Amino acid sequence: MRRKRETTSRFSSDTRPSCEEYLALADRNEMAITHLFEIHRNEDYLTGSRELANLCGAGIWHGKNFNFAYGNPVKEGEIFLIGTLELGVIETPGHTEESILIVLKDREVSDKPYMVFCGDALLAGDIGRTDFYGQERKAEMAGKIHDSIVKKILALGEGVIVCPAHGAGSLCGGDIADHSFTTAGYERATNPLLALAREEFIARRVTESPYYPPYFRTMEVLNANGPQLLDRIPRPGPLSIPEVVALRKSGCQIVDIRSPTSFAAGHIPHSLSIWRDGLPSFMGWFLDYNEPIVVVDDFNCGLKDVFCHFTRLGYDNLRGYLGGGFPSWSKAAQETDSFATCTAQELKERQEKETVFVLDVRDIKNRRSVGHIPRSHHRYIGELTEHLDEIPRDLPVITYCDGGYKGSLAAGILHANRYRSVTNMLGGMTSWKNTGFWIER
Amino acid sequence: MRRKRETTSRFSSDTRPSCEEYLALADRNEMAITHLFEIHRNEDYLTGSRELANLCGAGIWHGKNFNFAYGNPVKEGEIFLIGTLELGVIETPGHTEESILIVLKDREVSDKPYMVFCGDALLAGDIGRTDFYGQERKAEMAGKIHDSIVKKILALGEGVIVCPAHGAGSLCGGDIADHSFTTAGYERATNPLLALAREEFIARRVTESPYYPPYFRTMEVLNANGPQLLDRIPRPGPLSIPEVVALRKSGCQIVDIRSPTSFAAGHIPHSLSIWRDGLPSFMGWFLDYNEPIVVVDDFNCGLKDVFCHFTRLGYDNLRGYLGGGFPSWSKAAQETDSFATCTAQELKERQEKETVFVLDVRDIKNRRSVGHIPRSHHRYIGELTEHLDEIPRDLPVITYCDGGYKGSLAAGILHANRYRSVTNMLGGMTSWKNTGFWIER
Amino acid sequence: MRRKRETTSRFSSDTRPSCEEYLALADRNEMAITHLFEIHRNEDYLTGSRELANLCGAGIWHGKNFNFAYGNPVKEGEIFLIGTLELGVIETPGHTEESILIVLKDREVSDKPYMVFCGDALLAGDIGRTDFYGQERKAEMAGKIHDSIVKKILALGEGVIVCPAHGAGSLCGGDIADHSFTTAGYERATNPLLALAREEFIARRVTESPYYPPYFRTMEVLNANGPQLLDRIPRPGPLSIPEVVALRKSGCQIVDIRSPTSFAAGHIPHSLSIWRDGLPSFMGWFLDYNEPIVVVDDFNCGLKDVFCHFTRLGYDNLRGYLGGGFPSWSKAAQETDSFATCTAQELKERQEKETVFVLDVRDIKNRRSVGHIPRSHHRYIGELTEHLDEIPRDLPVITYCDGGYKGSLAAGILHANRYRSVTNMLGGMTSWKNTGFWIER
Amino acid sequence: MRRKRETTSRFSSDTRPSCEEYLALADRNEMAITHLFEIHRNEDYLTGSRELANLCGAGIWHGKNFNFAYGNPVKEGEIFLIGTLELGVIETPGHTEESILIVLKDREVSDKPYMVFCGDALLAGDIGRTDFYGQERKAEMAGKIHDSIVKKILALGEGVIVCPAHGAGSLCGGDIADHSFTTAGYERATNPLLALAREEFIARRVTESPYYPPYFRTMEVLNANGPQLLDRIPRPGPLSIPEVVALRKSGCQIVDIRSPTSFAAGHIPHSLSIWRDGLPSFMGWFLDYNEPIVVVDDFNCGLKDVFCHFTRLGYDNLRGYLGGGFPSWSKAAQETDSFATCTAQELKERQEKETVFVLDVRDIKNRRSVGHIPRSHHRYIGELTEHLDEIPRDLPVITYCDGGYKGSLAAGILHANRYRSVTNMLGGMTSWKNTGFWIER
Repeated sequence: MRRKRETTSRFSSDTRPSCEEYLALADRNEMAITHLFEIHRNEDYLTGSRELANLCGAGIWHGKNFNFAYGNPVKEGEIFLIGTLELGVIETPGHTEESILIVLKDREVSDKPYMVFCGDALLAGDIGRTDFYGQERKAEMAGKIHDSIVKKILALGEGVIVCPAHGAGSLCGGDIADHSFTTAGYERATNPLLALAREEFIARRVTESPYYPPYFRTMEVLNANGPQLLDRIPRPGPLSIPEVVALRKSGCQIVDIRSPTSFAAGHIPHSLSIWRDGLPSFMGWFLDYNEPIVVVDDFNCGLKDVFCHFTRLGYDNLRGYLGGGFPSWSKAAQETDSFATCTAQELKERQEKETVFVLDVRDIKNRRSVGHIPRSHHRYIGELTEHLDEIPRDLPVITYCDGGYKGSLAAGILHANRYRSVTNMLGGMTSWKNTGFWIER
Repeated sequence: MRRKRETTSRFSSDTRPSCEEYLALADRNEMAITHLFEIHRNEDYLTGSRELANLCGAGIWHGKNFNFAYGNPVKEGEIFLIGTLELGVIETPGHTEESILIVLKDREVSDKPYMVFCGDALLAGDIGRTDFYGQERKAEMAGKIHDSIVKKILALGEGVIVCPAHGAGSLCGGDIADHSFTTAGYERATNPLLALAREEFIARRVTESPYYPPYFRTMEVLNANGPQLLDRIPRPGPLSIPEVVALRKSGCQIVDIRSPTSFAAGHIPHSLSIWRDGLPSFMGWFLDYNEPIVVVDDFNCGLKDVFCHFTRLGYDNLRGYLGGGFPSWSKAAQETDSFATCTAQELKERQEKETVFVLDVRDIKNRRSVGHIPRSHHRYIGELTEHLDEIPRDLPVITYCDGGYKGSLAAGILHANRYRSVTNMLGGMTSWKNTGFWIER
Repeated sequence: MRRKRETTSRFSSDTRPSCEEYLALADRNEMAITHLFEIHRNEDYLTGSRELANLCGAGIWHGKNFNFAYGNPVKEGEIFLIGTLELGVIETPGHTEESILIVLKDREVSDKPYMVFCGDALLAGDIGRTDFYGQERKAEMAGKIHDSIVKKILALGEGVIVCPAHGAGSLCGGDIADHSFTTAGYERATNPLLALAREEFIARRVTESPYYPPYFRTMEVLNANGPQLLDRIPRPGPLSIPEVVALRKSGCQIVDIRSPTSFAAGHIPHSLSIWRDGLPSFMGWFLDYNEPIVVVDDFNCGLKDVFCHFTRLGYDNLRGYLGGGFPSWSKAAQETDSFATCTAQELKERQEKETVFVLDVRDIKNRRSVGHIPRSHHRYIGELTEHLDEIPRDLPVITYCDGGYKGSLAAGILHANRYRSVTNMLGGMTSWKNTGFWIER
Repeated sequence: MRRKRETTSRFSSDTRPSCEEYLALADRNEMAITHLFEIHRNEDYLTGSRELANLCGAGIWHGKNFNFAYGNPVKEGEIFLIGTLELGVIETPGHTEESILIVLKDREVSDKPYMVFCGDALLAGDIGRTDFYGQERKAEMAGKIHDSIVKKILALGEGVIVCPAHGAGSLCGGDIADHSFTTAGYERATNPLLALAREEFIARRVTESPYYPPYFRTMEVLNANGPQLLDRIPRPGPLSIPEVVALRKSGCQIVDIRSPTSFAAGHIPHSLSIWRDGLPSFMGWFLDYNEPIVVVDDFNCGLKDVFCHFTRLGYDNLRGYLGGGFPSWSKAAQETDSFATCTAQELKERQEKETVFVLDVRDIKNRRSVGHIPRSHHRYIGELTEHLDEIPRDLPVITYCDGGYKGSLAAGILHANRYRSVTNMLGGMTSWKNTGFWIER
């Protein structure tokens, strides 16, 4: 039900910049899209509401407690009638100050609420982040979101269907079925955070510090102003070897979307190993918004979805992809880098035989909940570049993560920074666990 | 929410014979389809489970109280574990004796039920038919379905999501979003039939006699045996004028899927006016399973969906469609029939000026709930052919229905049966109501 | 081979405003679109080159003998090398002064020409129009195109593949297979206009006056300046009855894309009967570029392609389509018009019994080559509105055309202009011919 | 024009087993497919004609000089009329004894031939193989094909469009634009084999021995009998780790479709490195028709096209693909193999420092025409398994090919056969050439 895909972002889609799907859905049902509600200001991707509004003439509404440069403010109690459907606004501060939710009733049937679109307040099995206003307001915002959920959402009755803004899944692939929904009754019975008393919940939230990628700030500003209108999802074309060579000379960012095995055995020097499913979560930590970006794949398969990730995060500096894929780089006899990989078994053997620096780059929460490889050090992948001084240059370094992907990104960063012996452990902590080796906690 | 499309069938999709969508959905999510549960034996279309099982190697299960010629029986309490998901079987006789429902739990989260797939027992705002075993068992089956719903579905808790087998909508077009879902709590609060006490409900059901199209019996037999495997949705091609002329000579059924206006102004003699959205509901009343079928449209637009309706109802005798559409028939100077149309205003004027026989061909339930045009007679469209003796041949006949479509079908039948003056009122009862004319009840 | 679709335009696609297909084709082949050549300035639709250039960063080139406001001029002898492919420019004035053609060689294979893209000079079985510069220059331009073809295209050798800019077929539907191609040898042997000596050809051209729709002038101006960039094909949504009623009050153009039968039996007063396939050829004769446009269909099927026709001809005033189609207009009990239809047989009977004015609205070339119904009068459909004074108001009028479509448009125009008795003959001249009735020439 | 994709098969599509595209093309044009002509018996893939005939009711015809178990024989001079189109049969033995070609005329235009579908006789820049009847008949068949081309195809006139059965390109992806066509005049002027006199051509053909993969024999037998009807392209689903582990135990073939880099750095022991574009050319050399097949990718992207290759070559034993891709294998801590890769520079350095066995696995024609790395040995990849005795076990082996793919397949085979030091040179001969190193001939 609540599928957890380790390799994808936990930040998912509210309104997608690629609006074609919404329009196609409306077309198939001979319906017009007339109202767009922004449940809150987003920080994790570019909202598509202004784009969609532009395409279909719909109006945009959002909570009154933030000064958006576009759209219309709404406040508690406002009602929108669409045929026999009633959409009611409820203010639910917590995740952000201006968060709202929309309660749907079908008046033809009853005046009971049927469904609630509750943004980032109540999620399936979770509750939205409350740390965006800094440490000093963490307790306040946690209290607010708790009140919003208990007094406003759960109060709608056990049988109301709850549609949170975030599912488990893909960002841009357009698989609506992936969006989870739940009910107030099911969450009351099963959501572990709802089992905490208000003060317990606040206390826990005060001590937590979720990672905050640098691009969040960019997204907030762009979304507050209404993101730039896109003609359409940009169509970066294939780049020839000479074009890529020239771009590297004048300065560009190479994003290598291949697997950890393919990256380790050969890659363009200084490229970033951000595998395709990891793009939405990690590109925002590493990519600059100005220097041109070039994508490298093996077979240039399914790139449309890949490009979409860049659009969603506001990167309009994606120049293209390497035509013919990485093999064409080899054929052109261009300079190539590589580093070693190892299995869990091999890592253990090396630990027993020599002094190695084992680097865990997972989210600290995973390190704590799952445990870690004995004698491994920790630094979250998103923060690695700023903390290279923690990593010794005189020891072989072996990186690992949850499943082997972030380890590849880390190994690539170290290798590009001239660490002399870098190895990525394939399969990550999952592999270690499956060998049955001892796990330190 | 509960969209009611007057012109489409109330019988909708459980498992579609066109299995491509299910397979594509599984592919997109890198999942295998391994279990198919038939909630009950269907009577309103060909079930696709055997076809799908054949394509993906899944097993089929259905309730033990019917002797299916394929698949495996299940009984109360059986559990299927798929990863952390638990699917539990509950027997819920009523709609049919062998009806079951499937309760879904996500054990990773909780042992509370999350969702229930409840077939034709509890529907959104309605309760499944209970008349399939004849008048003498109506009370018994109504009692059984009431017990199944109250004691087994509602007992799962208010917050459980209820997925009925029937939504409001299209049969084959593949718009999953059209499928309605609801919750036990919402139904308890709003479903009018659940507001009745057990005995009241039974008493009402005993007096009701929903229409029973002749093809239901065919579907039941085919579904009991497991419908014939289809290579794929048949691809009837265009037929030339000479081919259609030859088919007419040797005997064929012409199904004209155009609008009431287009049909009235010109059609191939003896064709049946079953507009494209009306096919799933009405083809089964009129079409024989042996004589070849030819489809006629104006522009041959979107025929793939049209053909799909024939497949779903087990018609493998669809020979093709008229190439070039009806206009090519005109160009070929072939024999053409036509009849008149009128507006609500014109009908009223004619009633005032002359003696006309106004024929209402709607479902009797609609006639009763909405009311009817004064001095109109009633005979349901599905039963018209068998009751032509009720329609006088010495008076002009004006047909009407809900929106003008079934009236066209009726007018065509009368015209083909040599009624000398036939007129279809465009817009049907809806138009009459909108003129503000008096409605008789 | 040279399919002639009576009901569609002879003006077909050079560069489509909907550029998605070109981009998708390039994507599938991992190619970049880098060069766009405009073979000549278009007058029959909006060119998409500037739109496509904007999307993929390609350059645009066109003949030097016209002052385009965008792109780059090229002249005789210029060569573009793309890998081993050589594209050479040859100037071929005639259709327009700045017309060019592109000769393709594959230097890896040979320096012989492989293919020639020859715009509107040599067409399959025809030669491009030469009347755009007025009567006084007809002889000059005819001579120029003859020289261009004989001295420049045929001179490339019999085996060169000839790709003309115009095929027989659809404009926007994206069916590349519809584009015809031929060879210099096949045209030399079979093209009837190439069988004429230079002076014979000029003499014939001087006497010809092909129709010149009013929107040609608009297209020329827009194309000279580089048409406005479109965000994408506009997505007109469904309009409710009240919205259409309001638009009619404030002034709008209703385009009814249904069949002649459907239109005759009922339509919104003052709507134009331009069936879907007739849009590219006839909308430009009748539709104003400022007043809002509303589309009416029966089932709102395949509207995306319909909307595309409006975009291609530069109409950005398409407001939407009637939700629910014409039947919803009937249901709403709104004012409706209708007129009669007849068959060829019935027309003949009426001619024998009474005085009727039979109006032929075909292209005068078809009237001459095919012949006409005895005692019929002629006025081309595109010119009808300006010549209503030729049509008597005191006689019943029966319209006809090639296949029944343009006759519907004509009948609708007459009916809207308060002609008291209007009838459209279904099936047109084709039907008359197929009855075996006498044809006058 | 004649794109040569080193990594794809030279054997391309005549009639594809996946018939959906043909049917969709016919649908879009409102046409029926009524006649299927098999230009000759195929040996390189399963013909789809019987499948297509079954779907659309078309008839099948083929040359009379082979005893097909289905369809109808045709002989020289037979004419098929379809509307105004005339299809004429000409017998052109050479590639096979029963080869035919179809000459297309459009009688509405002329009785000159417009186009010829010439199977594997005259190809764009090449002439079909003539070695299928063994060494003793090579001269005879070469003479026959030369006569067929000169006396029957070129005799149709320079301007006739020539459509050979084989283009350069993809097999199953459905990109019709990839199919090359040419003209008799262009071939006469540029085809190097047509520049040879008859006897010269025969003499050359007698000395040539193109590779003959083992599956050709299977295809011939299946095609002679009419291949088994497929329900549709099989839909292998994802396999879990335990399922793959079990399949490996009971015996299965693992096809690893990843890139050479990804394969080298980690793969399931004993898997075959046949990258996705190499499947049509190389699977037939290595895969058995009975033992189950499992596909392994990195991201399971675009697998539909991959599966299609298996269908086309008659493999119905494809069981599925590894769910989650190779990374899931690592995570499961399953046994993994790897070998080294090197660049051209590194290979040269090793040759200078130590004794290595450099193995060239290219087509011998490429080795001869392009030249080879000094001191390298040759054995074609398709024949490697049978000739392992030629490869020393006491030396490090470095494999190379044209671009690095076949070298990966070779390195994998050697590694699986317990060669102790195996390295694949990335980029192959192309890379060597691009470094500017000396090339031996």
